[in-house]
Amino acid sequence: MEIIETPKEMQRISTLLQASGKTIGFVPTMGYLHEGHEKLLEAARKENEIVVLSIFVNPLQFGPNEDLDRYPRDEAHDRKVALKHKVDYLFFPHAEAMYPGPSSIELTVKRRADVLCGRSRQGHFDGVVTVLSKLFNLCRPSKTYFGLKDAQQVAVVDALIEDFNFPVELVPVPTVREADGLAKSSRNVYLSEQERKEAPFIYQSLLHGKELALQGASREQVVSEVQAFIEERTHGRIDYIEFLSYPDLQQLDKPKGQMILATAVFFEKARLIDNILIDM
Amino acid sequence: MEIIETPKEMQRISTLLQASGKTIGFVPTMGYLHEGHEKLLEAARKENEIVVLSIFVNPLQFGPNEDLDRYPRDEAHDRKVALKHKVDYLFFPHAEAMYPGPSSIELTVKRRADVLCGRSRQGHFDGVVTVLSKLFNLCRPSKTYFGLKDAQQVAVVDALIEDFNFPVELVPVPTVREADGLAKSSRNVYLSEQERKEAPFIYQSLLHGKELALQGASREQVVSEVQAFIEERTHGRIDYIEFLSYPDLQQLDKPKGQMILATAVFFEKARLIDNILIDM
Repeated sequence: MEIIETPKEMQRISTLLQASGKTIGFVPTMGYLHEGHEKLLEAARKENEIVVLSIFVNPLQFGPNEDLDRYPRDEAHDRKVALKHKVDYLFFPHAEAMYPGPSSIELTVKRRADVLCGRSRQGHFDGVVTVLSKLFNLCRPSKTYFGLKDAQQVAVVDALIEDFNFPVELVPVPTVREADGLAKSSRNVYLSEQERKEAPFIYQSLLHGKELALQGASREQVVSEVQAFIEERTHGRIDYIEFLSYPDLQQLDKPKGQMILATAVFFEKARLIDNILIDM
Repeated sequence: MEIIETPKEMQRISTLLQASGKTIGFVPTMGYLHEGHEKLLEAARKENEIVVLSIFVNPLQFGPNEDLDRYPRDEAHDRKVALKHKVDYLFFPHAEAMYPGPSSIELTVKRRADVLCGRSRQGHFDGVVTVLSKLFNLCRPSKTYFGLKDAQQVAVVDALIEDFNFPVELVPVPTVREADGLAKSSRNVYLSEQERKEAPFIYQSLLHGKELALQGASREQVVSEVQAFIEERTHGRIDYIEFLSYPDLQQLDKPKGQMILATAVFFEKARLIDNILIDM
């Protein structure tokens, strides 16, 4: 495994790989790798000749009151995970190399961004699509892998690729869960013991909502039942519960086609998100 | 020469060419090709194994009061020019294929856009960088060619490539001039006989300004001398004269590094632009 620190070197190598006809699978992450990331690496390893993993805590996608400084890091562990999954290139750039100065041109997400997590994270997805545009151009992947845990991110990346014709195939990978159903997340370490016991009810609430939806419940019914389910079983404070078309993320009067039921719940020191896709 | 009409087919071919290690030179145009474009094609032909020429009158870069509908077209002539310069692929997409629906994500040029010609063309460069991002991703060039006659466009494309790390080298091609120094332009035919005699003084004025700058004149001195030079020798009405850093397009108190001295002059039926780069 080769560790690459500069954008220029990454682009030099990916261009050589491209020119020699190799397929490149790319997994962009912010590090602190967990089982969810490992699923992405497994899929990339299976489907491509070369696997590139990037680890970059992108300052642009954190709001002024968010946890950029506290975002967990563990380089030694991440390197081990990368080796375990036979990553060929670990791209590990510094923020100063990715953003050497103020940019002249800005990307703004105008749709799919003002719902779910995007509603309370002003500018978050602008930062996401900016860094991904750069990473796609630096790593030049044939396929790129994203976890459906952040389904809104998948929807926004889908729009980025469509709108700008990026020559890369988006591969969404199902959410990895603990045995009790809790979606794996780097932020789960911030849960207290009691909160950790309650957290699996988030996924339970979504399964309950899915069942209701498939039985013909209205959007409002599904949302209010999921809300009651979470409030009765956890001390979490609900940020949102939404039931939208997917990947368009529009509020439909009548649920139809592919839908997403998603929620975010605040605990004392962690905000957990989860979702399920429902085909109707 | 192969003529390609759909973005999907263009991307399929460029991806195959990439994977077989070919270098691709790309010349994006809006058609109605003239000698300026031919210089770009010549350079691309000399430096690459494959040459892709795109012809696309991009609606996104025209303002509501501009001449999108009246923009001149001559497909038969353009095809002849492409053949003459041994273009391999002529990419000729329809607007509906390039913009199949409302986009979710927008590009905005925040710097380098509000000076020179950009000052009076609100949103123009947003449209330019949007279509170029798409064309770069569809044609996947190793090098792309732009004329320095529109030096601001070169500066904005430079920012696009830098800010988003597009894996393409920008090759600026010097302005083509008549024997008397007048920059070639399709608009020169609109000059009266008297105006045609006066028009070369525009370039002369820039050369004069360059000499003064290299002798240590201030920005104000250079601009006012160029202005006097044009006003004394032509009946043209000056739109702007600017002396800026290049490619940053900032007003420097003390001219330093690479600079651009640029002007636009209205004649009766034509507005002429010209510029020179000055290394200080």
